[in-house]
Amino acid sequence: MVKAVVLLSGGLDSATVLAIARQQGYECYALSVSYGQRHGAELAAAKNLARSLGATAHKIIQVDLSTFGGSALIDKEREIPTDGVTPGIPSTYVPARNTIMLSIALAWAEVLGSGDIFIGVNAIDYSGYPDCRPEYIEAFETMANVATKAGIEGTRLAIHAPLMNLSKAEIIKRGGVLGVDYSMTVSCYQADDAGLACGVCDSCRLRRAGFESADVPDVTRYHAGFRQTPAS
Amino acid sequence: MVKAVVLLSGGLDSATVLAIARQQGYECYALSVSYGQRHGAELAAAKNLARSLGATAHKIIQVDLSTFGGSALIDKEREIPTDGVTPGIPSTYVPARNTIMLSIALAWAEVLGSGDIFIGVNAIDYSGYPDCRPEYIEAFETMANVATKAGIEGTRLAIHAPLMNLSKAEIIKRGGVLGVDYSMTVSCYQADDAGLACGVCDSCRLRRAGFESADVPDVTRYHAGFRQTPAS
Repeated sequence: MVKAVVLLSGGLDSATVLAIARQQGYECYALSVSYGQRHGAELAAAKNLARSLGATAHKIIQVDLSTFGGSALIDKEREIPTDGVTPGIPSTYVPARNTIMLSIALAWAEVLGSGDIFIGVNAIDYSGYPDCRPEYIEAFETMANVATKAGIEGTRLAIHAPLMNLSKAEIIKRGGVLGVDYSMTVSCYQADDAGLACGVCDSCRLRRAGFESADVPDVTRYHAGFRQTPAS
Repeated sequence: MVKAVVLLSGGLDSATVLAIARQQGYECYALSVSYGQRHGAELAAAKNLARSLGATAHKIIQVDLSTFGGSALIDKEREIPTDGVTPGIPSTYVPARNTIMLSIALAWAEVLGSGDIFIGVNAIDYSGYPDCRPEYIEAFETMANVATKAGIEGTRLAIHAPLMNLSKAEIIKRGGVLGVDYSMTVSCYQADDAGLACGVCDSCRLRRAGFESADVPDVTRYHAGFRQTPAS
């Protein structure tokens, strides 16, 4: 079997990516990065998802980006916006996060002798982060092929972003077919320790709208204080 | 003053780079990465160098790559080669190390509003690592400009590698002019806790040959067991 490193945050998108990579026949090495995010529920979800979706191994690597600050997602002094998705780059953007996560995945891939890295970025129903765009993934792939032994030995390393051009609804339908249990995933920017979602942050809103638009029951476990109303 | 993030390992090259960036008028934010290297003497040296060379701030970020293994530099079960520099990629190569370090520097730079990152890679007197070549630095710079707000807002981010085309002797002469005290730097792959160098690993050999060729007294603090003979 061909080995792949799959970035697994514990959210809806990366769980779907792991299921896709497994379906494509890869032996999957799931990688989560603890970068100083506000809550650990996402990482706990990642651990369970790695097991239930058939990853061969799962590692959690720590890189504490909260020492730099610069994002509401890692700085507890800053509020998570809950008024709806707005144009531009939001305060939840974590500078260089995907680059750091892909770089760590690159290290593991090279050690494993793997030429395939999967990441669940999406440029349709997303928050406007620069490192979720197709041109970014292409540029990272080009760099990765020069950075490693692959570039010298003539082998080829690919960054797979199978969700890039899917809507959130399409992602949810795809995962449903592949048997992903979305009640195990945590997308909320401010989930509590039990993984209960707020329902109103950008990530919750995009996810809710996805279930609505897919016409699939939303199995997300919400906080008791959240009264579900249409997302859009 | 214009801010720059300077990667500072504690070795000879990166100390020289910090001195060069300061001379060029940058306000320097020194960044060290503790990636699971065999010894901490390098990081202790980095801390002292940041202070003595006038960095505005110094941060040490932990990313434990030893969990992946794959390099003699982070795996204590493997021997550091001491028989001399040979062609090809040696066992001390740490997969994706420079990519991970530059990615973390990118995060800090973006938070600081800095468009300048300095790294002490060198493609002349080096160990054949793929991520020390000019084509790698160019590819990383291209990727970094797409990865961040810079790419969306039209500002420009530069990766500076001022040692790229210098010989080790030229680096040492340059640092000498800038007042770098090389006795404070630790380049050895297997330095002891006091920072004393083995004298025979590839890094020590390249450094010794540099002092010799520059005709500058070698101020490196060697282990008592090492009897200095010509490096070449």
